[in-house]
Amino acid sequence: AAQSPETWFPNEELTTVGAYYYPEHWDELQWDRDLKKMADMGFEFTHFAEFAWAQLEPEEGKYDFAWLDRAVALAAKHNLKVILCTSTATPPVWLVRKHPDVLKMREDGTQMDHGSRQHASFSNEYYRAYSQKMIAELAKHYGNDSRVIGWQLDNEPASNVDYGADAQKRYRSFLKEKYQTIDALNKAWGTNFWSGTYTDFDQIDIPQVSQWGMNLYQRLDFSRFCDSETATFLDEQARTIRQYASPNQWITTNYIPYYDARYVGDSRELDFISYTRYMVYGEHTGIGREGYRVGEYSRIAMANDYFRPLSPLYGCMELQPGQVNWGTINSQPLPGAVHLWLWHVFAGGSKFTCTYRFRAPIYGYEQYHYGILGPDGVTPTRGGLEYQKFIEEVKMLRDKHASSTVPADYLKRKTAILYDPDNTVAINQNKQTTVWDTEQHVLKYYKPLKSFGAPVDFIRDTMDFAKYPVLIAPAYQQMSRELIAKLTRYVENGGNLVMSCRTGHQDEFGHLWEAKHAEPIWPLIGGEIEFYDMLRPYAPDTVVVDGQKFAWTSWGDVLKPNAGTESWGTYADDFYAGESAVTFHKLGKGTVTYVGPDSNSGDLEQTVLTKLYTKLGIAVENYPKGIVVEYRDGFGIAMNYADEPYEMQLPAGAEILVGEQQIPTAGVLVWKLK
Amino acid sequence: AAQSPETWFPNEELTTVGAYYYPEHWDELQWDRDLKKMADMGFEFTHFAEFAWAQLEPEEGKYDFAWLDRAVALAAKHNLKVILCTSTATPPVWLVRKHPDVLKMREDGTQMDHGSRQHASFSNEYYRAYSQKMIAELAKHYGNDSRVIGWQLDNEPASNVDYGADAQKRYRSFLKEKYQTIDALNKAWGTNFWSGTYTDFDQIDIPQVSQWGMNLYQRLDFSRFCDSETATFLDEQARTIRQYASPNQWITTNYIPYYDARYVGDSRELDFISYTRYMVYGEHTGIGREGYRVGEYSRIAMANDYFRPLSPLYGCMELQPGQVNWGTINSQPLPGAVHLWLWHVFAGGSKFTCTYRFRAPIYGYEQYHYGILGPDGVTPTRGGLEYQKFIEEVKMLRDKHASSTVPADYLKRKTAILYDPDNTVAINQNKQTTVWDTEQHVLKYYKPLKSFGAPVDFIRDTMDFAKYPVLIAPAYQQMSRELIAKLTRYVENGGNLVMSCRTGHQDEFGHLWEAKHAEPIWPLIGGEIEFYDMLRPYAPDTVVVDGQKFAWTSWGDVLKPNAGTESWGTYADDFYAGESAVTFHKLGKGTVTYVGPDSNSGDLEQTVLTKLYTKLGIAVENYPKGIVVEYRDGFGIAMNYADEPYEMQLPAGAEILVGEQQIPTAGVLVWKLK
Amino acid sequence: AAQSPETWFPNEELTTVGAYYYPEHWDELQWDRDLKKMADMGFEFTHFAEFAWAQLEPEEGKYDFAWLDRAVALAAKHNLKVILCTSTATPPVWLVRKHPDVLKMREDGTQMDHGSRQHASFSNEYYRAYSQKMIAELAKHYGNDSRVIGWQLDNEPASNVDYGADAQKRYRSFLKEKYQTIDALNKAWGTNFWSGTYTDFDQIDIPQVSQWGMNLYQRLDFSRFCDSETATFLDEQARTIRQYASPNQWITTNYIPYYDARYVGDSRELDFISYTRYMVYGEHTGIGREGYRVGEYSRIAMANDYFRPLSPLYGCMELQPGQVNWGTINSQPLPGAVHLWLWHVFAGGSKFTCTYRFRAPIYGYEQYHYGILGPDGVTPTRGGLEYQKFIEEVKMLRDKHASSTVPADYLKRKTAILYDPDNTVAINQNKQTTVWDTEQHVLKYYKPLKSFGAPVDFIRDTMDFAKYPVLIAPAYQQMSRELIAKLTRYVENGGNLVMSCRTGHQDEFGHLWEAKHAEPIWPLIGGEIEFYDMLRPYAPDTVVVDGQKFAWTSWGDVLKPNAGTESWGTYADDFYAGESAVTFHKLGKGTVTYVGPDSNSGDLEQTVLTKLYTKLGIAVENYPKGIVVEYRDGFGIAMNYADEPYEMQLPAGAEILVGEQQIPTAGVLVWKLK
Ligand SMILES: [Zn+2]
Ligand SMILES: [Zn+2]
Ligand SMILES: [Zn+2]
Repeated sequence: AAQSPETWFPNEELTTVGAYYYPEHWDELQWDRDLKKMADMGFEFTHFAEFAWAQLEPEEGKYDFAWLDRAVALAAKHNLKVILCTSTATPPVWLVRKHPDVLKMREDGTQMDHGSRQHASFSNEYYRAYSQKMIAELAKHYGNDSRVIGWQLDNEPASNVDYGADAQKRYRSFLKEKYQTIDALNKAWGTNFWSGTYTDFDQIDIPQVSQWGMNLYQRLDFSRFCDSETATFLDEQARTIRQYASPNQWITTNYIPYYDARYVGDSRELDFISYTRYMVYGEHTGIGREGYRVGEYSRIAMANDYFRPLSPLYGCMELQPGQVNWGTINSQPLPGAVHLWLWHVFAGGSKFTCTYRFRAPIYGYEQYHYGILGPDGVTPTRGGLEYQKFIEEVKMLRDKHASSTVPADYLKRKTAILYDPDNTVAINQNKQTTVWDTEQHVLKYYKPLKSFGAPVDFIRDTMDFAKYPVLIAPAYQQMSRELIAKLTRYVENGGNLVMSCRTGHQDEFGHLWEAKHAEPIWPLIGGEIEFYDMLRPYAPDTVVVDGQKFAWTSWGDVLKPNAGTESWGTYADDFYAGESAVTFHKLGKGTVTYVGPDSNSGDLEQTVLTKLYTKLGIAVENYPKGIVVEYRDGFGIAMNYADEPYEMQLPAGAEILVGEQQIPTAGVLVWKLK
Repeated sequence: AAQSPETWFPNEELTTVGAYYYPEHWDELQWDRDLKKMADMGFEFTHFAEFAWAQLEPEEGKYDFAWLDRAVALAAKHNLKVILCTSTATPPVWLVRKHPDVLKMREDGTQMDHGSRQHASFSNEYYRAYSQKMIAELAKHYGNDSRVIGWQLDNEPASNVDYGADAQKRYRSFLKEKYQTIDALNKAWGTNFWSGTYTDFDQIDIPQVSQWGMNLYQRLDFSRFCDSETATFLDEQARTIRQYASPNQWITTNYIPYYDARYVGDSRELDFISYTRYMVYGEHTGIGREGYRVGEYSRIAMANDYFRPLSPLYGCMELQPGQVNWGTINSQPLPGAVHLWLWHVFAGGSKFTCTYRFRAPIYGYEQYHYGILGPDGVTPTRGGLEYQKFIEEVKMLRDKHASSTVPADYLKRKTAILYDPDNTVAINQNKQTTVWDTEQHVLKYYKPLKSFGAPVDFIRDTMDFAKYPVLIAPAYQQMSRELIAKLTRYVENGGNLVMSCRTGHQDEFGHLWEAKHAEPIWPLIGGEIEFYDMLRPYAPDTVVVDGQKFAWTSWGDVLKPNAGTESWGTYADDFYAGESAVTFHKLGKGTVTYVGPDSNSGDLEQTVLTKLYTKLGIAVENYPKGIVVEYRDGFGIAMNYADEPYEMQLPAGAEILVGEQQIPTAGVLVWKLK
Repeated sequence: AAQSPETWFPNEELTTVGAYYYPEHWDELQWDRDLKKMADMGFEFTHFAEFAWAQLEPEEGKYDFAWLDRAVALAAKHNLKVILCTSTATPPVWLVRKHPDVLKMREDGTQMDHGSRQHASFSNEYYRAYSQKMIAELAKHYGNDSRVIGWQLDNEPASNVDYGADAQKRYRSFLKEKYQTIDALNKAWGTNFWSGTYTDFDQIDIPQVSQWGMNLYQRLDFSRFCDSETATFLDEQARTIRQYASPNQWITTNYIPYYDARYVGDSRELDFISYTRYMVYGEHTGIGREGYRVGEYSRIAMANDYFRPLSPLYGCMELQPGQVNWGTINSQPLPGAVHLWLWHVFAGGSKFTCTYRFRAPIYGYEQYHYGILGPDGVTPTRGGLEYQKFIEEVKMLRDKHASSTVPADYLKRKTAILYDPDNTVAINQNKQTTVWDTEQHVLKYYKPLKSFGAPVDFIRDTMDFAKYPVLIAPAYQQMSRELIAKLTRYVENGGNLVMSCRTGHQDEFGHLWEAKHAEPIWPLIGGEIEFYDMLRPYAPDTVVVDGQKFAWTSWGDVLKPNAGTESWGTYADDFYAGESAVTFHKLGKGTVTYVGPDSNSGDLEQTVLTKLYTKLGIAVENYPKGIVVEYRDGFGIAMNYADEPYEMQLPAGAEILVGEQQIPTAGVLVWKLK
């Protein structure tokens, strides 16, 4: 990062809002009208060239930036800053036909084809080379253009799964670099099981993940490799741009917030990261009968809390302005929902939001996707008007001289979730029970924290634990002895650690300990894990905590607390009825809570955390499901994803800036902290 | 067509019945016995050589027609006319092994193999060439044989999906011929979206339909190409036969009535078309607990009403005589059901019915399929006896001096459904909601019409609209401005147009209008379509028409009628409660009714149509579900697919010819019109 | 077999128990400790080298038996006998990379890869050759080592499905050998259907089973070929070992008891066969809410009764010691369940049980699989202790001077089930209704027999029927005239035959009879099969036997008994209400019972069999579901898989050796016969 974030996104501006525009989709006679409209609605930046490689380099080596120059000039004319994209998600057909190997190969040996996007492989040498060459030209041309504020690399880069020859070669190099010797690999992969032993790296193939019994460590390393290819491809792009661009221009990319993606945060050359978030497209039911029109409240919340610790400056690069086209059931969002999401992105600390997209497309794969404007190119959509409203509200807030104050109570309940996507991948490829859902398991801890009104950071094991009074490690399967020692020091020095089932089962290589089950974490727990069980969905069993019953199905660790360790929960059914399910252990100046079962509803986890925070004397709120309250820059923001109005209690004399104290469904309340 | 239909199928014969026979499956000693039996049971024609290429050309270029000559002679001996088939659905193994490319290639690059049928590609040059060569020999041999009355080309020809090299080449030619320039194609395909732009037709591949995001227009054109291959292959066959055959011999083929198949009716060289229809094989539940044994009543009805407008002379080439073997659950048809189906085919105006098949096969893929005779080759099955009964009844009707009279009321309610299979394919590949079902949507308009006792024609946009008092365009998505103008003229001149949701969203290229949503049809509607919505199955909403409530889920257009346009239905739930769902607009001498939602049960559509016909003063019946009544040649035919008896009201003095006035389940009533 | 079974497994030892051990997985320093522990817990043998080809032949032609020598020596030191495995399930990577064709090719042309097990093809010439070479070295080294008692070939050998070039070639040879002439094949395969006719064996491909309409006989012969490849590969292995090994060493393999596998019992060179059985892994619900922890009671019972008639000396080579890792939901078995299964294996007559595996693996694909010891390598698991208990109990029984006495009543109800896996494959590839389940159909006859306390043998048509008072042929679809004659003789001589639906539909080629449906078995039935029907799951119908009603759905033969034949059951619904569903026919000195429907619950079959045995004067028990009682070597064994305790009635003065008369869930009662 060559520049301070403060220069790119000045604190006093709070946030800024922009919109994707595709000059190449529209008659050039309309560009001026469109960009003027964008500026008139209050947008402060636009975003060009996301998928325009064919227009930028129509023939090999023949670059055409003239059209883009004209678009940039028109944006500038209307005081719109410009983000440029590198267009690598859509290679032109001449490249694909000249070098068919750039197309990703699937596990079955078939290759993708031109006609879509993201069909080229980051592992292919030609694709990498042609990409860098084109990006270099782009950076030479726009790298010192002050109208261009920054760069988005590629689009929604994902794990690069490719079975092509180059990927094969690079996978072997990746392994060689990681393990150095074939013996080290054999040991890590446990290849004396089933005669797997290799004598040379060249004998190793990309694993067939659909083949029964395929070596799990080989698969895990392949998944790591695929993620790494994405990370290094972006780093290469960034280095190419930096070679020619001014340090005033920042570089980022826009990730889909997948929680099993190691590449998010793994490209070292980016100035910051951003996410794209779609809320209504047929997958999430939200709260109540019409909740699917508002969306699942944890989805923007968790994206904020996941990205911010990785990159304190972060933004939202795509947020839907209305109905989309690519979902299973593309419903209308509830009026107000787009406005709600904009505030939610803001509430987490984001520095910008960009909407996909300004005009609704009238052809192409995303035909029927809403824009800020409808298909006529001039009429704002309902969501477009909600964007306009948000922009006006933010401008009003800018005048309110924001401070960095947040309430003291809020800070005191700050909680970290110890998380590593590698665990999620590892568990998901070896679940032991079809009922288990890793992401839902984490959410069973995350959602209670949001009901507490707690600020949450998802942190990595390399980060500092000390600043969090409570640290939760849900299903953190792989743990080195060093990490166990670090957790022990954290607790002994006064930290409060919560661990859930599956945590610490395996060492850092993903092997079970040559010990009793999870024995290395027993000193932390202050007890033993006797065994674990998995139930059938038709026959869930029960755990009792303080007289309350909680059903569970997917996983239960059966515990045996040592003398001095409290048992907070007990199994009520089954042949181990009466044995301990939840334990609480004082260790040094801190405590360790272990939660053996994964409850069906998440209410067990809510109850245990409430009990713990009460015991620790940490004051928490008790917001109903769907109510989210956050603080930033001297403002409080309360949001309602629930299916009934919520009456927000405000400190006496709080100045309401947006909304009403009685917050309707999809409503937002913003007030100024005193 | 070299001959008038009247010559081939004289009106006074009403209809004629035949049966498939496969001499090659049986000991030649049995042929005479079998064909005599067929004639004795009343059948008037037989059908040979459907899958006999291996027997007709056992080695390349060596033809053996001797066995077929003997079979034809025996048929003639028993006064059975003969239909000959071209056998192309089953190429011999020597051809497949000599030119492996004749085998269809699937999208994943694998090829089909010998051992089944329909595994060769109509796009393959060798397959086309060898087919024509064999057919030419067949036509030379039998083309002037008066015992042979006509030809069936291939068998149940379907859309020819093939990813082989010849198909690839022909697809490019198809596109070149259609678009002439690559720029025209780029424009039609919207390729400046996602850098899709082509600079040469040779860059274009057959699209991978399973690849996410693949260009929808490329897919649509591929689907059109596949259909076109089928149409032109049949035309080639027909031309080859015509070269050698007498004009006394007609040429047809037997299509499965798929309503997304553009090739049906698209082969210009056929004299007429026919369909195959199977009613009981595990897919359709019919009415009531045992309704699956009778079948879904709209299936023969719609096949009649779909084929007849395309080809006034049409027939049913395959109708099951009993239990089949290839379905998911091959139940016994209800006694009487086979007889019912025969009458239903007749009622629509069909000129012949042929049954698959005379003898039950005792080996081969269709082992367990019933025939007119059982596996012993001599005992008639229950269905065989029902055929015999129908044949006797028809012969009795022939004596009744049929006229062409039909009741005046019946004619007055004649209704057209404007339909183009291209819309069905286009919608199905881009549904926007998984809940949508295009065929069911059309049936929600078709079934009320049958309950009205209305004659129905499925017509194309090139046909004359004026002869229909009511014209319904359900989900007719793509409309040129010319078609909108033609519909406007139809209405202004007194026509009554009904349009349902999705109609007119797109122009003739499948692009949204650069305008407000569906704006070009707003003048017809007399109002605006504000937006559309799609709901989740667990949360259907409600539309109210005249106090009656109707649930809907899949699609709802939200309407805003102009002053003077009536609102017939209102949304009752959701954030647009109170807005209009159904409108009625007087325009010139006619009217336009627009139905915004696709109701769950079809009852909304029934109610709106009833309201409309009442308003228009068109007298309609109100037959219960499963009761179908049609008229032809001076006879009335009432059929009962319902699960209880139906008492048919007959005009005073009507002469009952078949059945009783109280029609039992699976029963038929036929009377002579006065 | 070079030796008498009595020498290998002396009768007075009753049974012997062992455990799999993988020296190659563990630090050599632990081997002595581990094997001592095994011996201390009472195990009498161990099992080495199941998957160790990479360790036995680390480079081509370089054999390393030193490590195995040391392991064998340590086993001997602790008086553990050794079973050696041939390790062929896991070829080393050098072989796979040198000859990639050894990898199985799937139908879609993709190949499996190294990294799992069972990925090499028994049809591949290289794989066969390298396997025999390695096995020869192993046999030379250990063939006369008295510490080694026997050999297990491969591991769980399964039907060898491979589309590779060698398999293709061998399939053609298989067909050529079977049919001799292409005309014979054409006739058997019914290739004059759909122009299938071949003129040369070289034209024949392995059938694409996923291709619609593929010739069913070609598929059936391919399935036979795949099974045959397995059988002959094992025979080759056995012959290679025999060349070098002492006759004191026996040879077996361990099959998964699939009831559609023709290779089980088809390798002629094995001394005996054994099975592997896993009871709790997420698939079987058992009886009651927690029944899934005990397992389905028929699974060990039927494995015993299926293997024993094929191989009077048989054993169980793998039995789970606790939780497994590879199932869908890997629940904890109920305490006692492992002990129960051990007794159940014993009760059927087994000579040994070996457990997979001694130590729980801490890496590799089976990480999380329980062992006799836990992952620390020293602590016995609950299941480990149950093994120890069983071993102690067996040793106690050995002292009880077992006799061969079993109760006379028990012998009198001895029943055979006539079974051929070929029928199961044939039916399953051409079910006619998705609702049909061949294995469940057989179980509907088998389970009543176990409730009767009857000893059951699954026998083949080549075996002697005369020694069984009752013989049941459930859904025995293919029957030669010879078999029908043999069954007729059996009945005429006093046998009591029960046949169920689908039996005798086809001749030995799988063709329907050129006759009325199943007519050749009508004389046996004493009546006619008029037709068969298949129902929809939502509309089951009813059969009445002695006033009791039984629902059926999948298949019903409608019967017409001759005069003198009793009708025992009647259809109550449907258009054939009142017709016969079950008939009873006296023929010569015996009887024939025909059961037309396949009932939903199996209660119809239970009722009919009870009626029959009563009529025949054969005294039967009436054990509740889940109670199994068997006798061997002078002991009675009663086992409880039900969800409530069972009070076992014992003969006066019976000496209880294990358990209590009130048998709890998962409990066992063993007593000495007087
Ligand atoms: Zn994007
Ligand atoms: Zn046909
Ligand atoms: Zn094994």
